[in-house]
Amino acid sequence: MSGEQDLGITESKAHNPGEWYAEVVRKAGLADYAPMGGFIVTRPRGYAVWERIKGHLDGWFKDTGVDNAYFPMFIPEGYLEREKDVVEGFDPEVAWVTHGGHDELDERLAVRPTSESIIAPFMAQWIRSYRDLPLRVNQWCSVVRWEATETKPFFRTKEFLWQEGHTAHASEEDAWAETMTRLGQYERLYEEVMAIPAVTGRKPDHDKFPGADTTTTVEALMPDGKSVQGCTSHYLGTSFPEAFDITYTDEDEAERTAHTTSWGLSWRAMGALIMTHSDDQGLVLPPALAPTQVVVVPIWQADTAEAVTEYAADLAADLDAEFRVDLDDRDERNPGFKFNEHELNGVPLRVEVGPNEVEEGAATLVHRPDGESEVADREAIVEAVGEALDTVHAKLYADAESHLEDNVREAHGRGEILGTIGKHGGYVKTGWCGEEACDDEIKDEIAAEIVMLPLEEDEEPVHERCGVCGEEAVETAYFAKSY
Amino acid sequence: MSGEQDLGITESKAHNPGEWYAEVVRKAGLADYAPMGGFIVTRPRGYAVWERIKGHLDGWFKDTGVDNAYFPMFIPEGYLEREKDVVEGFDPEVAWVTHGGHDELDERLAVRPTSESIIAPFMAQWIRSYRDLPLRVNQWCSVVRWEATETKPFFRTKEFLWQEGHTAHASEEDAWAETMTRLGQYERLYEEVMAIPAVTGRKPDHDKFPGADTTTTVEALMPDGKSVQGCTSHYLGTSFPEAFDITYTDEDEAERTAHTTSWGLSWRAMGALIMTHSDDQGLVLPPALAPTQVVVVPIWQADTAEAVTEYAADLAADLDAEFRVDLDDRDERNPGFKFNEHELNGVPLRVEVGPNEVEEGAATLVHRPDGESEVADREAIVEAVGEALDTVHAKLYADAESHLEDNVREAHGRGEILGTIGKHGGYVKTGWCGEEACDDEIKDEIAAEIVMLPLEEDEEPVHERCGVCGEEAVETAYFAKSY
Repeated sequence: MSGEQDLGITESKAHNPGEWYAEVVRKAGLADYAPMGGFIVTRPRGYAVWERIKGHLDGWFKDTGVDNAYFPMFIPEGYLEREKDVVEGFDPEVAWVTHGGHDELDERLAVRPTSESIIAPFMAQWIRSYRDLPLRVNQWCSVVRWEATETKPFFRTKEFLWQEGHTAHASEEDAWAETMTRLGQYERLYEEVMAIPAVTGRKPDHDKFPGADTTTTVEALMPDGKSVQGCTSHYLGTSFPEAFDITYTDEDEAERTAHTTSWGLSWRAMGALIMTHSDDQGLVLPPALAPTQVVVVPIWQADTAEAVTEYAADLAADLDAEFRVDLDDRDERNPGFKFNEHELNGVPLRVEVGPNEVEEGAATLVHRPDGESEVADREAIVEAVGEALDTVHAKLYADAESHLEDNVREAHGRGEILGTIGKHGGYVKTGWCGEEACDDEIKDEIAAEIVMLPLEEDEEPVHERCGVCGEEAVETAYFAKSY
Repeated sequence: MSGEQDLGITESKAHNPGEWYAEVVRKAGLADYAPMGGFIVTRPRGYAVWERIKGHLDGWFKDTGVDNAYFPMFIPEGYLEREKDVVEGFDPEVAWVTHGGHDELDERLAVRPTSESIIAPFMAQWIRSYRDLPLRVNQWCSVVRWEATETKPFFRTKEFLWQEGHTAHASEEDAWAETMTRLGQYERLYEEVMAIPAVTGRKPDHDKFPGADTTTTVEALMPDGKSVQGCTSHYLGTSFPEAFDITYTDEDEAERTAHTTSWGLSWRAMGALIMTHSDDQGLVLPPALAPTQVVVVPIWQADTAEAVTEYAADLAADLDAEFRVDLDDRDERNPGFKFNEHELNGVPLRVEVGPNEVEEGAATLVHRPDGESEVADREAIVEAVGEALDTVHAKLYADAESHLEDNVREAHGRGEILGTIGKHGGYVKTGWCGEEACDDEIKDEIAAEIVMLPLEEDEEPVHERCGVCGEEAVETAYFAKSY
């Protein structure tokens, strides 16, 4: 944990984003690589960020009728097979438990890759009449998908933490409203908590969750011009209810089939967070998610030590009632070392206190994202720090917003689409005929694809013609490279 | 979820405690059995209790320097083997992952049965100097042990939820203090939150956690006279540090070996909770853990409907600011049905409001544990409900306390020990020579054993002679049957 050789980011975000990202994750103490490829150890600073993401979402979920529950981490092979029969194309690569103790199991157990197939049969048991609807359960857990090849902490790992919500409703209308409620909460998380403006929409039919009627998504544009699918919220229609007998008796005693949804957000959101805001000094976090929001650093010489440290401690104590504050009064480290360390670790605001500040009854506030400093009045320090933290959030958001705005471009025709994405990255907005072949054509050329279709279905497509084949466009598509 | 045939407990706690327990768990909506033996589905009401247990403990842990983290759910076989080499006797029955996707793995992965063997190597990396100590990490997760034969929800399941804390310290003294801090927090959870008085002590050497120097425990006495090991807090000494190279440089630049601890509490605590307080009407919960603390039930006839429901809604709204309140104004159910349902579900306090209460500006409060009712003034309803909830907690605690006090008995001699436990259950307190053989002798006869040795090491043994063999006693032992 100590060891000066470890301090400081050596890679460049602009030139080597992959290596830079890995270095920030490790040196800021967010995660380490586990001995098995594809697995990571989430260290306290990383886990604290995840806990805060969880805290926000979980509160919103509960305020809107969701209960948490916990389903087994194993799913019998026969249950997964049952799902495969009804949901064509669902064949996840899973980890298989074949032995318990010294004995081989009669039936293999999959470590859950997602839990529809174990939750649906219980929903079928629990739902009898319309009075049991809506039924909403969510679980915070880890899932395993044996897919990741190269490990990229939080972005690509075989085991990842997430939440998965599963709901059942009396009608399509209710289930669709649920799908939108959750999408809205995810968007709110990105914008208000993570300071990341996002675009929302649905996936093309050929890229939706197997078994879903509609898959919606929040997409976030990374600084390197690639899009991250930041969550998904699926309207599943009646496919799972039909396969698993999720029916209910309505007010007229008629038996009806329920409509279901599922929606999830994983720690990939943390990956997007780290990648969006951090810089060549290290981690940058929005105040809402930072484990330490404010660090107070006293700067003293021998003759001022007592007055300065006392002033700093007093100030930190005042702030402590309102914010997550750390007083860094270690005497074995000089201020420069401390500044670098707290910058590396992503503390949003540094409060410097030296003899001048003591004399003037002031404190110097330094914003992490851009190093801007301001002098605040000691008497009004709590308000000043609160405003400075709001400013830090606003700066992060504004930077990400202008990056997003600058990187949504229209293109007409295959050549222009390929050229624009190839040159600038970002989103290319164009008309689309609705054929998968046109998506494939772009994918085959430059590994970009349709990441999102705006949800406003009444709106006219941005262009009359499909940007790829020139046939009539039926909607607008956003093409981008993606993580 | 509806369906009247499901309401009401039919088994007797006194005569059929096993069946009664299973019925309460299922009918109060705490858990269902999963399709695989040994696994359960934790339903919203059950999970909400666990979340509150977690909330209390997690807050105390964080207040005392513990950070949460997350380690992989899989442990390579070689890591477990390494542990086996140093910790004789550690050979847990685990679930083995042998295949990922369609491929057989080069090395089998164990689903974690506990995480010492994957956490210790990381501690070794993270700790360099005395400044990195103490290091405290905790994780809330599930673990799997392929041991349970018969499923008993929360008590015996192959997968269970728990927290496991792991810490490293500079000295034995610090590590021992840590062990005691966590034991004290568990005891506090049992007493203040769960309303269960407990006895604390250490396990005999032959029954401690493999590799531990000392295993301490909180034991709770169940109504059927058996003891539940309610948690464990281990002082591990230097066994893991020596095996995994957890060393640090001290202030004089000398390399030293750290001392470690681990401590855990599982959802077995929920099992103890349900079993201790619940009765033949169903679940009983202490107010601190009840998902719904207060249910307001309006009781009206046609002519009073509007006045009563309005009064009830207004009262519920007042309570809602302070408590977790449910207003049960369903018109398709009569009050008797509602009373039974909320009793089954363990709501600690019922507030009844009828025409009389409206007229008198009052409300009738009914305590779940004993059905006692009191009339409260509408104007002071928030205070009255707060006091009534405190009273409910106190009643639960007092009942459990008198049961415990009545069931700690002294016995001299083998025959009396066997006879006393055979007849009354509970704890038998006697002198012990320190030999495992004496524990085995009792175990072989009646499946009772030493569950706890009081911690005060200076104290004289309760008897001069070992209650089993008659040799000189070196300490006091508590024998009991246990879960």
